[in-house]
Amino acid sequence: MDKKTVGLSNDFKSSTAPKTFTKNPIKGTKLTIAISSAKGGVGKSTFAMNFALALKSLDLKVGILDADIYGPSLPRMMSINEKPKSEDGKSMVPIDKYGIQCMSIGFLVDEETPMIWRGPMVTSAIKTFAQKVLWNDLDFIVVDMPPGTGDTQLTFAQEIKVDGVIIVSTPQEVALSDVKRGIRMFDKLKVPILGLVDNMSFFESDDGKKYNIFGEGGVEKLATNYNKKFLGKIPIDIDLRVAADSGKPLVEENPNHKISKIFKEIALKTKGSFL
Amino acid sequence: MDKKTVGLSNDFKSSTAPKTFTKNPIKGTKLTIAISSAKGGVGKSTFAMNFALALKSLDLKVGILDADIYGPSLPRMMSINEKPKSEDGKSMVPIDKYGIQCMSIGFLVDEETPMIWRGPMVTSAIKTFAQKVLWNDLDFIVVDMPPGTGDTQLTFAQEIKVDGVIIVSTPQEVALSDVKRGIRMFDKLKVPILGLVDNMSFFESDDGKKYNIFGEGGVEKLATNYNKKFLGKIPIDIDLRVAADSGKPLVEENPNHKISKIFKEIALKTKGSFL
Repeated sequence: MDKKTVGLSNDFKSSTAPKTFTKNPIKGTKLTIAISSAKGGVGKSTFAMNFALALKSLDLKVGILDADIYGPSLPRMMSINEKPKSEDGKSMVPIDKYGIQCMSIGFLVDEETPMIWRGPMVTSAIKTFAQKVLWNDLDFIVVDMPPGTGDTQLTFAQEIKVDGVIIVSTPQEVALSDVKRGIRMFDKLKVPILGLVDNMSFFESDDGKKYNIFGEGGVEKLATNYNKKFLGKIPIDIDLRVAADSGKPLVEENPNHKISKIFKEIALKTKGSFL
Repeated sequence: MDKKTVGLSNDFKSSTAPKTFTKNPIKGTKLTIAISSAKGGVGKSTFAMNFALALKSLDLKVGILDADIYGPSLPRMMSINEKPKSEDGKSMVPIDKYGIQCMSIGFLVDEETPMIWRGPMVTSAIKTFAQKVLWNDLDFIVVDMPPGTGDTQLTFAQEIKVDGVIIVSTPQEVALSDVKRGIRMFDKLKVPILGLVDNMSFFESDDGKKYNIFGEGGVEKLATNYNKKFLGKIPIDIDLRVAADSGKPLVEENPNHKISKIFKEIALKTKGSFL
Protein backbone atom coordinates (compact mmCIF):
# COMPACT_ATOMS: atom_id res chain seq x y z
CA MET A 1 0.00 0.00 0.00
CA ASP A 2 1.32 3.37 -0.99
CA LYS A 3 1.60 5.40 2.22
CA LYS A 4 1.38 8.76 0.53
CA THR A 5 -2.12 8.14 -0.61
CA VAL A 6 -3.58 6.83 2.64
CA GLY A 7 -6.90 8.44 3.19
CA LEU A 8 -7.20 9.71 -0.36
CA SER A 9 -9.89 8.00 -2.36
CA ASN A 10 -9.31 7.12 -6.00
CA ASP A 11 -11.95 9.68 -6.88
CA PHE A 12 -9.98 12.37 -5.13
CA LYS A 13 -6.77 11.31 -6.81
CA SER A 14 -8.29 11.36 -10.25
CA SER A 15 -9.91 14.72 -9.57
CA THR A 16 -6.57 16.26 -8.65
CA ALA A 17 -4.46 14.67 -11.40
CA PRO A 18 -3.53 17.00 -14.27
CA LYS A 19 -6.26 16.73 -16.87
CA THR A 20 -5.21 15.03 -20.08
CA PHE A 21 -7.08 15.63 -23.29
CA THR A 22 -7.78 13.42 -26.26
CA LYS A 23 -8.00 15.24 -29.56
CA ASN A 24 -10.81 13.69 -31.55
CA PRO A 25 -11.04 14.46 -35.26
CA ILE A 26 -14.40 15.78 -36.44
CA LYS A 27 -16.17 12.76 -37.98
CA GLY A 28 -16.90 12.88 -41.69
CA THR A 29 -13.99 15.07 -42.79
CA LYS A 30 -10.39 14.44 -43.79
CA LEU A 31 -9.11 17.82 -42.62
CA THR A 32 -10.20 20.62 -40.30
CA ILE A 33 -9.00 24.18 -40.88
CA ALA A 34 -9.83 26.91 -38.34
CA ILE A 35 -10.09 30.55 -39.39
CA SER A 36 -9.08 32.66 -36.44
CA SER A 37 -8.27 36.27 -35.69
CA ALA A 38 -8.04 36.86 -31.93
CA LYS A 39 -9.56 40.28 -32.67
CA GLY A 40 -13.14 40.51 -33.91
CA GLY A 41 -14.41 42.43 -36.89
CA VAL A 42 -11.45 41.92 -39.17
CA GLY A 43 -13.59 40.19 -41.80
CA LYS A 44 -12.92 36.68 -40.55
CA SER A 45 -16.40 35.33 -41.33
CA THR A 46 -16.43 36.90 -44.79
CA PHE A 47 -13.03 35.32 -45.30
CA ALA A 48 -14.18 31.92 -44.02
CA MET A 49 -17.23 31.73 -46.32
CA ASN A 50 -15.36 32.86 -49.45
CA PHE A 51 -12.39 30.65 -48.63
CA ALA A 52 -14.68 27.62 -48.25
CA LEU A 53 -16.30 28.37 -51.61
CA ALA A 54 -12.87 28.82 -53.17
CA LEU A 55 -11.87 25.37 -51.89
CA LYS A 56 -15.08 23.99 -53.38
CA SER A 57 -14.18 25.52 -56.75
CA LEU A 58 -11.04 23.33 -56.68
CA ASP A 59 -13.33 20.25 -56.77
CA LEU A 60 -13.00 19.58 -53.05
CA LYS A 61 -15.88 18.60 -50.78
CA VAL A 62 -16.21 21.30 -48.14
CA GLY A 63 -18.16 22.08 -44.97
CA ILE A 64 -18.40 25.22 -42.83
CA LEU A 65 -18.78 25.04 -39.07
CA ASP A 66 -19.72 28.44 -37.64
CA ALA A 67 -18.19 28.24 -34.14
CA ASP A 68 -19.12 31.80 -33.18
CA ILE A 69 -21.87 31.10 -30.65
CA TYR A 70 -22.32 34.74 -29.61
CA GLY A 71 -22.28 36.18 -33.13
CA PRO A 72 -23.12 33.59 -35.79
CA SER A 73 -22.74 35.06 -39.30
CA LEU A 74 -23.31 32.02 -41.46
CA PRO A 75 -27.14 32.15 -41.70
CA ARG A 76 -27.09 35.66 -43.19
CA MET A 77 -23.91 35.39 -45.24
CA MET A 78 -25.06 32.15 -46.89
CA SER A 79 -28.75 33.09 -46.85
CA ILE A 80 -29.89 30.04 -44.87
CA ASN A 81 -33.27 30.20 -43.14
CA GLU A 82 -34.03 26.57 -42.40
CA LYS A 83 -33.50 24.36 -39.39
CA PRO A 84 -31.31 21.27 -39.63
CA LYS A 85 -33.08 17.90 -39.70
CA SER A 86 -32.51 15.13 -37.21
CA GLU A 87 -33.50 11.48 -37.68
CA ASP A 88 -32.92 10.37 -34.10
CA GLY A 89 -33.36 13.62 -32.14
CA LYS A 90 -29.65 13.70 -31.31
CA SER A 91 -27.56 14.04 -34.45
CA MET A 92 -28.12 16.82 -36.98
CA VAL A 93 -27.84 16.83 -40.75
CA PRO A 94 -25.86 19.89 -41.95
CA ILE A 95 -27.63 22.19 -44.39
CA ASP A 96 -26.40 22.13 -47.96
CA LYS A 97 -25.98 25.54 -49.61
CA TYR A 98 -24.02 26.44 -52.74
CA GLY A 99 -22.60 22.89 -52.56
CA ILE A 100 -21.23 23.43 -49.04
CA GLN A 101 -22.35 21.56 -45.90
CA CYS A 102 -23.16 24.19 -43.25
CA MET A 103 -23.82 24.25 -39.50
CA SER A 104 -24.36 27.22 -37.16
CA ILE A 105 -26.02 27.94 -33.81
CA GLY A 106 -27.91 30.52 -35.85
CA PHE A 107 -29.88 27.70 -37.53
CA LEU A 108 -31.28 26.68 -34.15
CA VAL A 109 -32.47 30.04 -32.80
CA ASP A 110 -34.03 33.05 -34.45
CA GLU A 111 -31.71 35.81 -35.60
CA GLU A 112 -32.38 38.23 -32.78
CA THR A 113 -32.07 35.82 -29.87
CA PRO A 114 -28.88 36.50 -27.94
CA MET A 115 -27.07 33.43 -26.60
CA ILE A 116 -26.55 34.78 -23.07
CA TRP A 117 -24.34 31.90 -22.04
CA ARG A 118 -21.41 31.48 -19.71
CA GLY A 119 -18.37 29.54 -20.90
CA PRO A 120 -19.34 25.94 -20.03
CA MET A 121 -22.52 26.23 -22.15
CA VAL A 122 -20.45 27.44 -25.08
CA THR A 123 -18.05 24.52 -24.68
CA SER A 124 -20.96 22.11 -24.66
CA ALA A 125 -22.43 23.62 -27.86
CA ILE A 126 -19.05 23.42 -29.62
CA LYS A 127 -18.65 19.76 -28.71
CA THR A 128 -22.13 19.00 -29.99
CA PHE A 129 -21.27 20.64 -33.31
CA ALA A 130 -18.05 18.66 -33.57
CA GLN A 131 -19.52 15.29 -32.57
CA LYS A 132 -23.22 15.23 -33.46
CA VAL A 133 -23.30 16.75 -36.93
CA LEU A 134 -23.48 14.21 -39.74
CA TRP A 135 -20.82 15.74 -41.98
CA ASN A 136 -20.70 13.63 -45.11
CA ASP A 137 -17.41 12.59 -46.71
CA LEU A 138 -15.70 16.01 -46.69
CA ASP A 139 -12.17 16.92 -47.67
CA PHE A 140 -12.17 20.09 -45.55
CA ILE A 141 -14.23 21.57 -42.75
CA VAL A 142 -13.61 25.30 -42.46
CA VAL A 143 -14.27 26.43 -38.87
CA ASP A 144 -15.21 30.09 -38.42
CA MET A 145 -13.85 30.79 -34.93
CA PRO A 146 -15.09 33.55 -32.59
CA PRO A 147 -12.69 36.32 -31.53
CA GLY A 148 -10.64 35.94 -28.36
CA THR A 149 -8.56 33.24 -26.74
CA GLY A 150 -11.23 31.68 -24.53
CA ASP A 151 -13.52 28.69 -24.21
CA THR A 152 -14.10 27.97 -27.89
CA GLN A 153 -10.41 28.23 -28.79
CA LEU A 154 -9.44 26.05 -25.82
CA THR A 155 -12.02 23.42 -26.69
CA PHE A 156 -10.83 23.22 -30.29
CA ALA A 157 -7.17 23.22 -29.33
CA GLN A 158 -7.47 20.64 -26.54
CA GLU A 159 -10.23 18.30 -27.58
CA ILE A 160 -10.69 18.52 -31.35
CA LYS A 161 -8.09 17.63 -33.96
CA VAL A 162 -7.40 20.82 -35.91
CA ASP A 163 -5.04 20.34 -38.85
CA GLY A 164 -4.22 23.97 -39.34
CA VAL A 165 -5.19 27.56 -38.50
CA ILE A 166 -5.31 30.54 -40.82
CA ILE A 167 -5.05 33.82 -38.92
CA VAL A 168 -6.82 36.79 -40.50
CA SER A 169 -6.07 40.36 -39.43
CA THR A 170 -6.41 43.94 -40.51
CA PRO A 171 -3.10 45.80 -40.51
CA GLN A 172 -3.60 48.38 -37.71
CA GLU A 173 -1.33 48.18 -34.67
CA VAL A 174 -4.06 47.44 -32.13
CA ALA A 175 -5.24 44.47 -34.20
CA LEU A 176 -1.70 43.17 -34.53
CA SER A 177 -1.32 43.04 -30.73
CA ASP A 178 -4.23 40.62 -30.69
CA VAL A 179 -2.70 38.58 -33.53
CA LYS A 180 0.54 38.19 -31.56
CA ARG A 181 -1.45 36.82 -28.64
CA GLY A 182 -3.30 34.48 -31.03
CA ILE A 183 -0.04 33.14 -32.50
CA ARG A 184 1.34 32.57 -29.01
CA MET A 185 -1.81 30.72 -28.01
CA PHE A 186 -1.84 28.32 -30.98
CA ASP A 187 1.90 27.71 -30.68
CA LYS A 188 1.48 26.97 -26.98
CA LEU A 189 -1.43 24.63 -27.62
CA LYS A 190 0.48 22.99 -30.49
CA VAL A 191 -2.01 23.76 -33.24
CA PRO A 192 -0.15 24.31 -36.56
CA ILE A 193 -0.52 27.79 -38.07
CA LEU A 194 -0.82 27.57 -41.87
CA GLY A 195 -0.26 31.27 -42.36
CA LEU A 196 -1.46 34.86 -41.96
CA VAL A 197 -3.78 36.89 -44.21
CA ASP A 198 -3.82 40.69 -44.39
CA ASN A 199 -7.49 41.64 -44.76
CA MET A 200 -8.85 45.13 -45.53
CA SER A 201 -5.30 45.90 -46.66
CA PHE A 202 -6.14 49.17 -48.41
CA PHE A 203 -9.02 50.96 -50.12
CA GLU A 204 -8.83 52.08 -53.73
CA SER A 205 -11.11 54.98 -54.66
CA ASP A 206 -12.68 55.29 -58.11
CA ASP A 207 -9.84 57.54 -59.31
CA GLY A 208 -7.34 54.76 -58.52
CA LYS A 209 -5.85 56.33 -55.39
CA LYS A 210 -4.93 53.89 -52.62
CA TYR A 211 -5.76 54.68 -48.99
CA ASN A 212 -4.14 52.69 -46.18
CA ILE A 213 -7.16 53.13 -43.93
CA PHE A 214 -5.97 50.57 -41.39
CA GLY A 215 -2.20 50.99 -41.89
CA GLU A 216 0.22 49.20 -44.20
CA GLY A 217 2.29 46.04 -44.32
CA GLY A 218 1.90 45.16 -40.64
CA VAL A 219 0.58 41.63 -41.08
CA GLU A 220 3.30 40.57 -43.53
CA LYS A 221 6.02 41.97 -41.26
CA LEU A 222 4.51 40.17 -38.27
CA ALA A 223 4.44 36.88 -40.24
CA THR A 224 8.15 37.29 -40.98
CA ASN A 225 8.97 38.12 -37.36
CA TYR A 226 7.15 35.06 -36.06
CA ASN A 227 8.44 32.80 -38.83
CA LYS A 228 4.96 32.12 -40.24
CA LYS A 229 3.84 32.00 -43.88
CA PHE A 230 2.18 35.09 -45.35
CA LEU A 231 -0.75 33.92 -47.46
CA GLY A 232 -1.75 37.18 -49.14
CA LYS A 233 -3.54 40.49 -48.84
CA ILE A 234 -7.19 41.26 -49.58
CA PRO A 235 -8.13 44.91 -50.18
CA ILE A 236 -11.29 46.56 -48.81
CA ASP A 237 -13.91 45.99 -51.48
CA ILE A 238 -17.52 47.12 -51.43
CA ASP A 239 -18.56 44.23 -53.73
CA LEU A 240 -17.23 41.77 -51.15
CA ARG A 241 -19.26 43.34 -48.34
CA VAL A 242 -22.42 43.71 -50.43
CA ALA A 243 -22.23 40.04 -51.48
CA ALA A 244 -21.81 38.95 -47.82
CA ASP A 245 -24.74 41.12 -46.72
CA SER A 246 -26.95 39.81 -49.53
CA GLY A 247 -26.35 36.16 -48.66
CA LYS A 248 -24.34 35.03 -51.69
CA PRO A 249 -20.59 35.30 -51.08
CA LEU A 250 -18.56 36.97 -53.84
CA VAL A 251 -16.61 33.83 -54.80
CA GLU A 252 -19.96 32.15 -55.62
CA GLU A 253 -21.67 35.26 -57.02
CA ASN A 254 -18.81 36.36 -59.25
CA PRO A 255 -16.02 33.77 -59.50
CA ASN A 256 -13.97 35.93 -61.89
CA HIS A 257 -13.92 39.05 -59.66
CA LYS A 258 -10.35 40.11 -58.80
CA ILE A 259 -11.10 39.46 -55.12
CA SER A 260 -12.46 35.97 -55.89
CA LYS A 261 -9.16 35.20 -57.60
CA ILE A 262 -7.24 36.12 -54.45
CA PHE A 263 -9.39 33.69 -52.45
CA LYS A 264 -8.68 30.96 -54.99
CA GLU A 265 -4.94 31.52 -54.72
CA ILE A 266 -5.13 31.17 -50.93
CA ALA A 267 -7.30 28.05 -51.32
CA LEU A 268 -4.75 26.56 -53.72
CA LYS A 269 -1.91 27.20 -51.27
CA THR A 270 -3.94 25.57 -48.49
CA LYS A 271 -4.81 22.55 -50.61
CA GLY A 272 -1.13 22.26 -51.54
CA SER A 273 -0.16 22.07 -47.85
CA PHE A 274 -2.16 18.86 -47.44
CA LEU A 275 -3.26 17.10 -50.62
CA MET B 1 -41.87 19.84 9.59
CA ASP B 2 -42.31 20.40 5.90
CA LYS B 3 -42.79 16.96 4.39
CA LYS B 4 -41.58 17.97 0.93
CA THR B 5 -38.10 18.70 2.16
CA VAL B 6 -37.52 15.58 4.21
CA GLY B 7 -34.07 14.30 3.49
CA LEU B 8 -32.93 17.48 1.75
CA SER B 9 -30.24 19.37 3.63
CA ASN B 10 -30.29 23.14 3.82
CA ASP B 11 -27.14 23.17 1.75
CA PHE B 12 -28.89 21.28 -1.01
CA LYS B 13 -31.89 23.56 -0.86
CA SER B 14 -29.81 26.68 -1.13
CA SER B 15 -27.78 25.20 -3.97
CA THR B 16 -30.93 24.49 -5.99
CA ALA B 17 -32.70 27.78 -5.26
CA PRO B 18 -32.67 30.27 -8.14
CA LYS B 19 -29.55 32.41 -7.77
CA THR B 20 -30.24 36.01 -6.88
CA PHE B 21 -27.73 38.70 -7.67
CA THR B 22 -26.86 41.90 -5.89
CA LYS B 23 -25.77 44.70 -8.17
CA ASN B 24 -22.92 46.53 -6.50
CA PRO B 25 -21.86 49.91 -7.82
CA ILE B 26 -18.18 50.25 -8.69
CA LYS B 27 -16.65 52.07 -5.72
CA GLY B 28 -15.23 55.53 -6.34
CA THR B 29 -17.48 56.60 -9.18
CA LYS B 30 -20.87 58.24 -9.43
CA LEU B 31 -21.80 56.63 -12.74
CA THR B 32 -20.75 53.65 -14.84
CA ILE B 33 -21.24 53.65 -18.61
CA ALA B 34 -20.50 50.51 -20.64
CA ILE B 35 -19.47 50.74 -24.29
CA SER B 36 -20.66 47.60 -26.00
CA SER B 37 -21.00 46.27 -29.52
CA ALA B 38 -21.85 42.55 -29.47
CA LYS B 39 -19.70 42.30 -32.63
CA GLY B 40 -15.96 42.90 -32.39
CA GLY B 41 -13.85 45.18 -34.54
CA VAL B 42 -16.38 47.95 -34.98
CA GLY B 43 -14.09 50.51 -33.36
CA LYS B 44 -15.53 50.14 -29.88
CA SER B 45 -12.23 50.63 -28.05
CA THR B 46 -11.28 53.65 -30.15
CA PHE B 47 -14.74 55.00 -29.37
CA ALA B 48 -14.41 54.28 -25.64
CA MET B 49 -11.04 56.07 -25.27
CA ASN B 50 -12.08 59.14 -27.27
CA PHE B 51 -15.47 59.28 -25.57
CA ALA B 52 -13.80 59.17 -22.14
CA LEU B 53 -11.46 62.02 -23.14
CA ALA B 54 -14.42 63.97 -24.51
CA LEU B 55 -16.19 63.60 -21.14
CA LYS B 56 -13.01 64.83 -19.46
CA SER B 57 -13.00 67.91 -21.70
CA LEU B 58 -16.39 68.76 -20.17
CA ASP B 59 -14.64 69.12 -16.79
CA LEU B 60 -15.77 65.74 -15.54
CA LYS B 61 -13.56 63.29 -13.65
CA VAL B 62 -13.33 60.13 -15.71
CA GLY B 63 -11.92 56.61 -15.53
CA ILE B 64 -11.61 53.85 -18.14
CA LEU B 65 -11.97 50.20 -17.25
CA ASP B 66 -10.80 47.96 -20.10
CA ALA B 67 -12.96 44.87 -19.59
CA ASP B 68 -11.69 43.07 -22.68
CA ILE B 69 -9.63 40.35 -21.04
CA TYR B 70 -8.81 38.52 -24.28
CA GLY B 71 -7.93 41.62 -26.31
CA PRO B 72 -7.03 44.60 -24.11
CA SER B 73 -6.51 47.73 -26.22
CA LEU B 74 -6.04 50.37 -23.54
CA PRO B 75 -2.26 49.97 -22.98
CA ARG B 76 -1.46 50.68 -26.62
CA MET B 77 -4.19 53.22 -27.34
CA MET B 78 -3.27 55.30 -24.29
CA SER B 79 0.44 54.50 -24.47
CA ILE B 80 0.67 53.04 -20.96
CA ASN B 81 3.65 50.80 -20.18
CA GLU B 82 3.68 50.71 -16.39
CA LYS B 83 2.24 48.33 -13.84
CA PRO B 84 -0.33 49.55 -11.30
CA LYS B 85 0.89 50.04 -7.73
CA SER B 86 -0.59 48.32 -4.72
CA GLU B 87 -0.12 49.37 -1.09
CA ASP B 88 -1.53 46.22 0.50
CA GLY B 89 -0.98 43.60 -2.22
CA LYS B 90 -4.72 43.36 -2.85
CA SER B 91 -6.08 46.64 -4.12
CA MET B 92 -4.62 48.43 -7.15
CA VAL B 93 -4.16 52.11 -7.89
CA PRO B 94 -5.38 52.95 -11.42
CA ILE B 95 -2.83 54.55 -13.73
CA ASP B 96 -3.35 58.20 -14.55
CA LYS B 97 -2.92 59.14 -18.21
CA TYR B 98 -4.07 62.29 -20.00
CA GLY B 99 -6.03 63.06 -16.82
CA ILE B 100 -7.96 59.77 -16.97
CA GLN B 101 -7.75 56.96 -14.40
CA CYS B 102 -7.05 53.73 -16.31
CA MET B 103 -7.14 49.99 -15.59
CA SER B 104 -6.59 47.04 -17.96
CA ILE B 105 -5.50 43.40 -17.75
CA GLY B 106 -2.87 44.54 -20.24
CA PHE B 107 -1.09 46.42 -17.41
CA LEU B 108 -0.55 43.14 -15.57
CA VAL B 109 0.88 40.97 -18.36
CA ASP B 110 3.20 41.69 -21.26
CA GLU B 111 1.61 42.61 -24.57
CA GLU B 112 2.12 39.30 -26.33
CA THR B 113 0.89 37.01 -23.54
CA PRO B 114 -2.47 35.50 -24.48
CA MET B 115 -4.96 35.12 -21.62
CA ILE B 116 -5.94 31.53 -22.41
CA TRP B 117 -8.73 31.48 -19.86
CA ARG B 118 -12.07 29.79 -19.59
CA GLY B 119 -15.10 31.81 -18.51
CA PRO B 120 -14.90 31.56 -14.70
CA MET B 121 -11.37 33.04 -14.73
CA VAL B 122 -12.63 35.94 -16.81
CA THR B 123 -15.48 36.53 -14.38
CA SER B 124 -13.06 36.56 -11.49
CA ALA B 125 -10.79 39.11 -13.23
CA ILE B 126 -13.76 41.37 -13.98
CA LYS B 127 -14.91 41.30 -10.36
CA THR B 128 -11.41 42.16 -9.18
CA PHE B 129 -11.35 45.17 -11.51
CA ALA B 130 -14.74 46.32 -10.25
CA GLN B 131 -14.01 45.81 -6.56
CA LYS B 132 -10.27 46.09 -5.96
CA VAL B 133 -9.32 49.13 -8.00
CA LEU B 134 -9.01 52.36 -6.01
CA TRP B 135 -10.93 54.61 -8.39
CA ASN B 136 -10.77 58.09 -6.93
CA ASP B 137 -13.81 60.36 -6.83
CA LEU B 138 -14.94 59.89 -10.45
CA ASP B 139 -18.02 61.21 -12.19
CA PHE B 140 -17.93 58.52 -14.87
CA ILE B 141 -16.23 55.18 -15.42
CA VAL B 142 -16.30 54.22 -19.08
CA VAL B 143 -16.16 50.43 -19.42
CA ASP B 144 -14.75 49.09 -22.70
CA MET B 145 -16.63 45.77 -23.03
CA PRO B 146 -15.44 42.78 -25.05
CA PRO B 147 -17.51 41.54 -28.01
CA GLY B 148 -20.15 38.88 -27.46
CA THR B 149 -22.93 38.21 -24.98
CA GLY B 150 -21.00 35.99 -22.58
CA ASP B 151 -19.32 35.93 -19.19
CA THR B 152 -18.16 39.54 -19.03
CA GLN B 153 -21.52 40.93 -20.14
CA LEU B 154 -23.37 38.67 -17.70
CA THR B 155 -21.13 39.64 -14.82
CA PHE B 156 -21.63 43.34 -15.49
CA ALA B 157 -25.35 42.97 -16.00
CA GLN B 158 -26.00 40.78 -12.97
CA GLU B 159 -23.48 41.84 -10.36
CA ILE B 160 -22.29 45.36 -11.15
CA LYS B 161 -24.47 48.46 -11.25
CA VAL B 162 -24.26 49.80 -14.81
CA ASP B 163 -26.05 53.11 -15.30
CA GLY B 164 -26.18 52.96 -19.06
CA VAL B 165 -24.85 51.26 -22.18
CA ILE B 166 -23.82 52.86 -25.45
CA ILE B 167 -23.91 50.38 -28.33
CA VAL B 168 -21.42 51.02 -31.13
CA SER B 169 -21.78 49.37 -34.53
CA THR B 170 -20.68 49.62 -38.12
CA PRO B 171 -23.60 49.76 -40.54
CA GLN B 172 -23.24 46.47 -42.47
CA GLU B 173 -26.05 43.94 -42.18
CA VAL B 174 -24.00 41.20 -40.51
CA ALA B 175 -22.93 43.62 -37.77
CA LEU B 176 -26.51 44.76 -37.24
CA SER B 177 -27.62 41.18 -36.52
CA ASP B 178 -25.19 41.18 -33.62
CA VAL B 179 -26.46 44.57 -32.43
CA LYS B 180 -30.02 43.27 -32.34
CA ARG B 181 -28.86 40.42 -30.12
CA GLY B 182 -27.00 42.92 -27.93
CA ILE B 183 -30.09 45.12 -27.52
CA ARG B 184 -32.19 42.08 -26.61
CA MET B 185 -29.61 41.01 -24.05
CA PHE B 186 -29.40 44.36 -22.26
CA ASP B 187 -33.18 44.77 -22.34
CA LYS B 188 -33.58 41.28 -20.89
CA LEU B 189 -31.00 41.95 -18.17
CA LYS B 190 -32.59 45.35 -17.46
CA VAL B 191 -29.52 47.46 -18.21
CA PRO B 192 -30.61 50.83 -19.67
CA ILE B 193 -29.41 51.52 -23.24
CA LEU B 194 -28.44 55.19 -23.63
CA GLY B 195 -28.29 54.98 -27.40
CA LEU B 196 -26.65 53.67 -30.56
CA VAL B 197 -23.64 55.08 -32.46
CA ASP B 198 -22.97 54.45 -36.16
CA ASN B 199 -19.19 54.03 -36.43
CA MET B 200 -17.17 53.85 -39.67
CA SER B 201 -20.27 55.33 -41.31
CA PHE B 202 -18.61 56.22 -44.60
CA PHE B 203 -15.21 57.08 -46.08
CA GLU B 204 -14.52 60.35 -47.83
CA SER B 205 -11.67 60.31 -50.35
CA ASP B 206 -9.44 63.33 -50.96
CA ASP B 207 -11.61 64.46 -53.88
CA GLY B 208 -14.61 64.64 -51.53
CA LYS B 209 -16.41 61.53 -52.80
CA LYS B 210 -18.21 59.50 -50.13
CA TYR B 211 -18.00 55.71 -50.11
CA ASN B 212 -20.41 53.67 -48.02
CA ILE B 213 -17.85 50.94 -47.46
CA PHE B 214 -19.89 49.18 -44.79
CA GLY B 215 -23.37 50.17 -45.99
CA GLU B 216 -25.56 53.12 -45.11
CA GLY B 217 -28.04 54.21 -42.49
CA GLY B 218 -28.50 50.79 -40.92
CA VAL B 219 -27.72 51.75 -37.34
CA GLU B 220 -30.05 54.76 -37.25
CA LYS B 221 -32.89 52.70 -38.74
CA LEU B 222 -32.28 49.96 -36.19
CA ALA B 223 -32.36 52.52 -33.35
CA THR B 224 -35.75 53.72 -34.58
CA ASN B 225 -37.11 50.18 -34.91
CA TYR B 226 -36.06 49.29 -31.37
CA ASN B 227 -37.15 52.63 -29.93
CA LYS B 228 -33.63 53.59 -28.84
CA LYS B 229 -31.86 56.94 -29.15
CA PHE B 230 -29.50 57.47 -32.08
CA LEU B 231 -26.44 59.30 -30.74
CA GLY B 232 -24.62 60.07 -34.00
CA LYS B 233 -22.42 58.84 -36.80
CA ILE B 234 -18.63 58.82 -36.97
CA PRO B 235 -17.02 58.49 -40.41
CA ILE B 236 -13.96 56.35 -41.16
CA ASP B 237 -11.00 58.62 -40.57
CA ILE B 238 -7.34 57.78 -40.97
CA ASP B 239 -6.35 60.43 -38.38
CA LEU B 240 -8.53 58.64 -35.80
CA ARG B 241 -6.84 55.28 -36.46
CA VAL B 242 -3.33 56.74 -36.57
CA ALA B 243 -3.89 58.52 -33.24
CA ALA B 244 -5.17 55.30 -31.63
CA ASP B 245 -2.20 53.32 -32.99
CA SER B 246 0.26 55.97 -31.79
CA GLY B 247 -1.06 55.97 -28.22
CA LYS B 248 -2.61 59.44 -28.03
CA PRO B 249 -6.32 59.40 -28.91
CA LEU B 250 -7.49 62.03 -31.38
CA VAL B 251 -9.70 63.92 -28.91
CA GLU B 252 -6.57 64.54 -26.79
CA GLU B 253 -4.15 64.98 -29.70
CA ASN B 254 -6.32 67.34 -31.72
CA PRO B 255 -9.38 68.56 -29.80
CA ASN B 256 -10.55 70.72 -32.70
CA HIS B 257 -10.53 67.95 -35.32
CA LYS B 258 -13.98 67.46 -36.88
CA ILE B 259 -14.06 63.92 -35.47
CA SER B 260 -13.17 65.17 -31.97
CA LYS B 261 -16.16 67.50 -32.15
CA ILE B 262 -18.47 64.56 -32.87
CA PHE B 263 -17.16 62.80 -29.75
CA LYS B 264 -17.79 65.93 -27.69
CA GLU B 265 -21.38 66.12 -28.92
CA ILE B 266 -21.96 62.52 -27.88
CA ALA B 267 -20.29 63.21 -24.51
CA LEU B 268 -22.54 66.24 -23.99
CA LYS B 269 -25.65 64.18 -24.73
CA THR B 270 -24.48 61.52 -22.27
CA LYS B 271 -23.71 64.05 -19.55
CA GLY B 272 -27.14 65.57 -20.15
CA SER B 273 -28.80 62.21 -19.50
CA PHE B 274 -27.46 62.17 -15.94
CA LEU B 275 -26.06 65.42 -14.60
